[in-house]
Amino acid sequence: LVNEAALIAARQNRKVVTMHDFEVAKDKVIMGAERKSMMLSDAEKRTTAYHEAGHALVAVMLPEADPLHKVTIIPRGMALGLTMQLPLDDKHSYSKNYLKAQLSILMAGRIAEEMFLQQSTTGAGNDIERATDLARKMVCEWGMSELGPLSFGKKEEQIFLGREIAQHRDYSEETALKIDEQVRKFVDEGYRVARGIIEKHRDALVRIAEALLEREILDGAEVKALIDGQNLTPMSTSNKPKPPSGDSQQVIKPEGGLRIPPIMDGGESPHPA
Amino acid sequence: LVNEAALIAARQNRKVVTMHDFEVAKDKVIMGAERKSMMLSDAEKRTTAYHEAGHALVAVMLPEADPLHKVTIIPRGMALGLTMQLPLDDKHSYSKNYLKAQLSILMAGRIAEEMFLQQSTTGAGNDIERATDLARKMVCEWGMSELGPLSFGKKEEQIFLGREIAQHRDYSEETALKIDEQVRKFVDEGYRVARGIIEKHRDALVRIAEALLEREILDGAEVKALIDGQNLTPMSTSNKPKPPSGDSQQVIKPEGGLRIPPIMDGGESPHPA
Amino acid sequence: LVNEAALIAARQNRKVVTMHDFEVAKDKVIMGAERKSMMLSDAEKRTTAYHEAGHALVAVMLPEADPLHKVTIIPRGMALGLTMQLPLDDKHSYSKNYLKAQLSILMAGRIAEEMFLQQSTTGAGNDIERATDLARKMVCEWGMSELGPLSFGKKEEQIFLGREIAQHRDYSEETALKIDEQVRKFVDEGYRVARGIIEKHRDALVRIAEALLEREILDGAEVKALIDGQNLTPMSTSNKPKPPSGDSQQVIKPEGGLRIPPIMDGGESPHPA
Amino acid sequence: LVNEAALIAARQNRKVVTMHDFEVAKDKVIMGAERKSMMLSDAEKRTTAYHEAGHALVAVMLPEADPLHKVTIIPRGMALGLTMQLPLDDKHSYSKNYLKAQLSILMAGRIAEEMFLQQSTTGAGNDIERATDLARKMVCEWGMSELGPLSFGKKEEQIFLGREIAQHRDYSEETALKIDEQVRKFVDEGYRVARGIIEKHRDALVRIAEALLEREILDGAEVKALIDGQNLTPMSTSNKPKPPSGDSQQVIKPEGGLRIPPIMDGGESPHPA
Amino acid sequence: LVNEAALIAARQNRKVVTMHDFEVAKDKVIMGAERKSMMLSDAEKRTTAYHEAGHALVAVMLPEADPLHKVTIIPRGMALGLTMQLPLDDKHSYSKNYLKAQLSILMAGRIAEEMFLQQSTTGAGNDIERATDLARKMVCEWGMSELGPLSFGKKEEQIFLGREIAQHRDYSEETALKIDEQVRKFVDEGYRVARGIIEKHRDALVRIAEALLEREILDGAEVKALIDGQNLTPMSTSNKPKPPSGDSQQVIKPEGGLRIPPIMDGGESPHPA
Amino acid sequence: LVNEAALIAARQNRKVVTMHDFEVAKDKVIMGAERKSMMLSDAEKRTTAYHEAGHALVAVMLPEADPLHKVTIIPRGMALGLTMQLPLDDKHSYSKNYLKAQLSILMAGRIAEEMFLQQSTTGAGNDIERATDLARKMVCEWGMSELGPLSFGKKEEQIFLGREIAQHRDYSEETALKIDEQVRKFVDEGYRVARGIIEKHRDALVRIAEALLEREILDGAEVKALIDGQNLTPMSTSNKPKPPSGDSQQVIKPEGGLRIPPIMDGGESPHPA
Repeated sequence: LVNEAALIAARQNRKVVTMHDFEVAKDKVIMGAERKSMMLSDAEKRTTAYHEAGHALVAVMLPEADPLHKVTIIPRGMALGLTMQLPLDDKHSYSKNYLKAQLSILMAGRIAEEMFLQQSTTGAGNDIERATDLARKMVCEWGMSELGPLSFGKKEEQIFLGREIAQHRDYSEETALKIDEQVRKFVDEGYRVARGIIEKHRDALVRIAEALLEREILDGAEVKALIDGQNLTPMSTSNKPKPPSGDSQQVIKPEGGLRIPPIMDGGESPHPA
Repeated sequence: LVNEAALIAARQNRKVVTMHDFEVAKDKVIMGAERKSMMLSDAEKRTTAYHEAGHALVAVMLPEADPLHKVTIIPRGMALGLTMQLPLDDKHSYSKNYLKAQLSILMAGRIAEEMFLQQSTTGAGNDIERATDLARKMVCEWGMSELGPLSFGKKEEQIFLGREIAQHRDYSEETALKIDEQVRKFVDEGYRVARGIIEKHRDALVRIAEALLEREILDGAEVKALIDGQNLTPMSTSNKPKPPSGDSQQVIKPEGGLRIPPIMDGGESPHPA
Repeated sequence: LVNEAALIAARQNRKVVTMHDFEVAKDKVIMGAERKSMMLSDAEKRTTAYHEAGHALVAVMLPEADPLHKVTIIPRGMALGLTMQLPLDDKHSYSKNYLKAQLSILMAGRIAEEMFLQQSTTGAGNDIERATDLARKMVCEWGMSELGPLSFGKKEEQIFLGREIAQHRDYSEETALKIDEQVRKFVDEGYRVARGIIEKHRDALVRIAEALLEREILDGAEVKALIDGQNLTPMSTSNKPKPPSGDSQQVIKPEGGLRIPPIMDGGESPHPA
Repeated sequence: LVNEAALIAARQNRKVVTMHDFEVAKDKVIMGAERKSMMLSDAEKRTTAYHEAGHALVAVMLPEADPLHKVTIIPRGMALGLTMQLPLDDKHSYSKNYLKAQLSILMAGRIAEEMFLQQSTTGAGNDIERATDLARKMVCEWGMSELGPLSFGKKEEQIFLGREIAQHRDYSEETALKIDEQVRKFVDEGYRVARGIIEKHRDALVRIAEALLEREILDGAEVKALIDGQNLTPMSTSNKPKPPSGDSQQVIKPEGGLRIPPIMDGGESPHPA
Repeated sequence: LVNEAALIAARQNRKVVTMHDFEVAKDKVIMGAERKSMMLSDAEKRTTAYHEAGHALVAVMLPEADPLHKVTIIPRGMALGLTMQLPLDDKHSYSKNYLKAQLSILMAGRIAEEMFLQQSTTGAGNDIERATDLARKMVCEWGMSELGPLSFGKKEEQIFLGREIAQHRDYSEETALKIDEQVRKFVDEGYRVARGIIEKHRDALVRIAEALLEREILDGAEVKALIDGQNLTPMSTSNKPKPPSGDSQQVIKPEGGLRIPPIMDGGESPHPA
Repeated sequence: LVNEAALIAARQNRKVVTMHDFEVAKDKVIMGAERKSMMLSDAEKRTTAYHEAGHALVAVMLPEADPLHKVTIIPRGMALGLTMQLPLDDKHSYSKNYLKAQLSILMAGRIAEEMFLQQSTTGAGNDIERATDLARKMVCEWGMSELGPLSFGKKEEQIFLGREIAQHRDYSEETALKIDEQVRKFVDEGYRVARGIIEKHRDALVRIAEALLEREILDGAEVKALIDGQNLTPMSTSNKPKPPSGDSQQVIKPEGGLRIPPIMDGGESPHPA
């Protein structure tokens, strides 16, 4: 990390490594390098902005969720945008309410696209997969559904390479049907809650999305201010390093990304647009 | 690419590499070398022409689809013909409407054969497989069907060789049935829309097919002109390099191929006849 | 091929390689060496003759089928007999009518055994497997059944050794049932059509079968003559090379075999008795 | 074979290799060495004798079956006894009637045990497995059942080591049910036919079984004589080599075994008791 | 074996190897070494005694079963106790009645625990697994159930390492249901028969169990005497070698174990408590 | 163990290895090293305390369960807390009543969270998995359910690496349904019993949980005293080694953990919070 920060400073011919260099370096290490070279059309930027605004708004409005850290529409890794939450403390277990909040946050991107752009895109595919996976675990591993404190499916994991190869189905077709119903119920509820929040805060969502289109990145306080109807302070360039030339252009603007803390498998889980 | 273009010019004993050489080289790189050696019977040429004309007509008529670039009945790779669309900009995510347009375009080849040649051939097999695959993803991965924002089936991909080995079915038989219904619904709708367009523009389709039989290749503007009922300018040979002898014969006629931009998995997806 | 023809001439101590040598060599390369050493009982020869006569008669009577080239009851490879069709031109795609004709031709061998010998034998096993396979592809890959232009089943082919390992079933039990019905429908129709033809041309089939028992091989023209009720010219030996001694005995009689052109997978598909 | 025959003569200190030596050698090569060392209790010998007598009687009485060659209760390989048929000529395909006769012969051993010894034993397990396998092939591969000329199940054979790994089930549950019914029908019919024959020839079966207990081996003519109610000529020892000492004791009595010709997979198929 | 017997004598500083040494050696070779070091609580000893007494009583009372040889509550290998039967002669096939008797004997351990100790323990798990396996083979391999002489399930055994990998299910769901019913029927009947015997001979079972707790091992004659209500001769120490010191303590008491002869797969099958 | 104890003493510069050192060493060997470095938030500590208090209370109140040894909320290995029982003697088999008690103890953690903290967390996931696994074995391996003394599912274990790869399902769908019902019945009953105990001893549970929050570890006697309404003696520091500096800080406080004795597979089974 220190190395990365030093490199950033060096590329800009500065001798002092600032805290800002560290923040940029941290984001790079955690989220993957930015991909400025990935050219998005205006339409895709707009889609991404509303999608991420959905995630961000719902993350702020749900008290059980971790606080919003940052939201951005600068592509990183495979994602066109990111919403990042910062947990108040390291979590070792998660409550049902926390998980339900995550389901709502995951649904919010698709909902925002539907409500404001009258479309649904493939970009929500990862959100949908993660939400379904989470809901399935709530039902099948954590005993949080109406099916009660039983586990369903036997993991076969350590055989080759220590990886889970197959979730062995050891239950009846009728049980499979009940599991499907309970999974759907969790996802549907997450959708309904998220939709309720977004419908109630239509203007706020538009303000967040438009601010994202203008600034590309917002932190939690800025999002809250927008929700409260305040104006953001005009964009200043003074507190940002000047755009360097060449490939260091990627550090022109300090950015970060809001991301949901890893709640499953220890895997990283950014919100792609 | 530059190499390929230089080679083309060299084979024709020209010292100047023209833009045309580049276009030919680009097509060769993207679509695979032409296969002039593949002898098609007149009947197969006719089938291919009507099949491709179907793809081309529907691609032009659907506003959500990418613009038509070229359509050809010169065999390339495994395909007897190709229809190529050019996206207005690089896409990173696809809207439901765009995907539905693709389904219609994929169905259009089979429909044209049925309506004008009173037959259906195995040549549409790849179109059908791709359409079904696309529709299945819309339902199972992208949450675009009446089943809502849930994913169905767990991919097991990275185990050996980084390839997807199996789409693990982790849902009930009843859910499998609903998925089948939704997949069918998407494909059927694509078929219905395409059929409606072709029935409404019967004469245009015949004109495109017949022009293809005469010229073997048409660009988007020519197809649009034919749809508008205009005559194409008589085939001139002046703006084409003279047929060289030997194996360079394959560059006699500058050709290209219309192809649908890759919308799935980053894979190439030409429309075979 | 030239080599093989030269060898044939050499074995007979001839200095001139005749067209006939080429035909024999071609048959050997395409169909595998004859197996004169495989001793068939008279009963098995009779079974084979009627079986092949069934294939041949139906192949001639169906206008959509490729023309009959040869039919033989001399064993080759694993087959006790062969019926060979010659396509008018190389085909790259096949129409539904062509495929339905193939289904009828495949069924005709079993039918002839049933009608004329009052038996059914294991010898039709390969015909049945190929017909079922073909019908299944018409339903599941080529969208030619009432199930419409959808594909069913996901091929998993390139994983190990580039071979198709499993046709992954990704559809519901109800869809499986519909597929079974459509496959049966195609096979049953092929059976019905073939039976109709054979019942209408009972005498012709007997004439073909008896001529096969006498001559062991017939070409398309001879089969047509027999269907028309004409007598074949008496067997002459003048236009045949004299039986050489030793292992070259296998070229005593120029023979060939009628075979259906490969319509699936590029695989060879002779009609075994 | 010649070697084996010479060895047999040598072990008995004879200089002349007799035809009898050849017969013994042939049986040894085909059926595996006798296992005189396997000690059967009198009860097991009796069970074996009636079991084999059942196979032998039905084999003789069914005109479609190959003629009976020998029947023995001397253990060979894994079998406690053997019934061997000799085909009139090499068969390359089998008729439905021939196969139905085989089913009856396979059932006859179990039936004889049930009727005469009021028991059923595990010894019929192999007969049952082979009969079921044969009936299943008649239904699923050879199109001989009411399900008609379709094949069911896709063999996956050549992948690893050239062996059939799995009979891939590619049909619906309803089709599976119909297959089960048809398989049962064939086996039940075989059972019924065999039982009818044995009930009608109760005395003959007892005569064959008792003769087997006395002589351990009978040839086809002897079995027929017993069926016709004739007495066998008293056992003479003159035409048998004298029991040598030591391990050559195993050739004291020239023996053979009746075995059904391989009708499936080219595999050997002795009738174990 | 001789070695082992000599060692036993040597450990006790005796020069003469007695028949008793041989018996001890034989038991060690066949059943695995005793595990005196495995400390059982009094409660577990009691459970084991009643469990084994159940096996022993039923083994004696069923005429179709092999005669009882020994019964012990000294742990050996994985088993807390053993009941051993000695077949009258080597068996190569087993009758249905013999197998049904085995089912009853297998059930008897659990029943004795239930009736006399009002409990059921995990110790009967192996009995249950073996009984179910046996009943399943009676239905699926040996054609002994109401489903008749058909086999169900295709063994796939020789592929890797010569081991049975999977019993491939090649039948319909309805057939699976019928198989389950027949398997249950066999096990239930075994349970009912065993329970009837134990209820009728309650006192005998208690006598056997209490004698086992006192003596740890009983032979067949002693068990029969106890069933007949006789007293066992008081335990004498004269005919037993004196307890040596050190690790030879394990031969203080000559012991053996009653075990059911291997009726399946040639595998060993001791009755664990 | 001795080594470990000596190391502990050495790290504290003591020359005498005390019994306490041995206890700490034993716990470390058995339960894995403590993880003081794992920082839990106050909320997580509270959740863990109530969760473990649930396990401990029910373990004490059920007479069939092994006596409670210790309960702790100091993280060890993957667990946030542990409840450890000490069996009165080594068990080699387990009675149904003992297993039912274990099911209740396993359920008690989740119940305590629900009743006192109005939440359910992912932390109970392992309890749920183990309870389901145990109940499934009671039904499928040990014949303790209404389905009777049959086993369900065939283990395929020794094939690769000696590990159980798959529990092969060899029963019908209807049987699968019945198994699901019986498994659920066992788990539900365990839940009901545990809930009854906790509701009846609400105050005791709160006292245990609060004492855990204060002291982090309690032994069986302390838990019983709390249940009886007694006060614990005030925490003294005299009988504890002083906190050393550096990484030996991990032995500041002697701790242990209550753990359920391994009842399945010989595997360790700590109760995680």
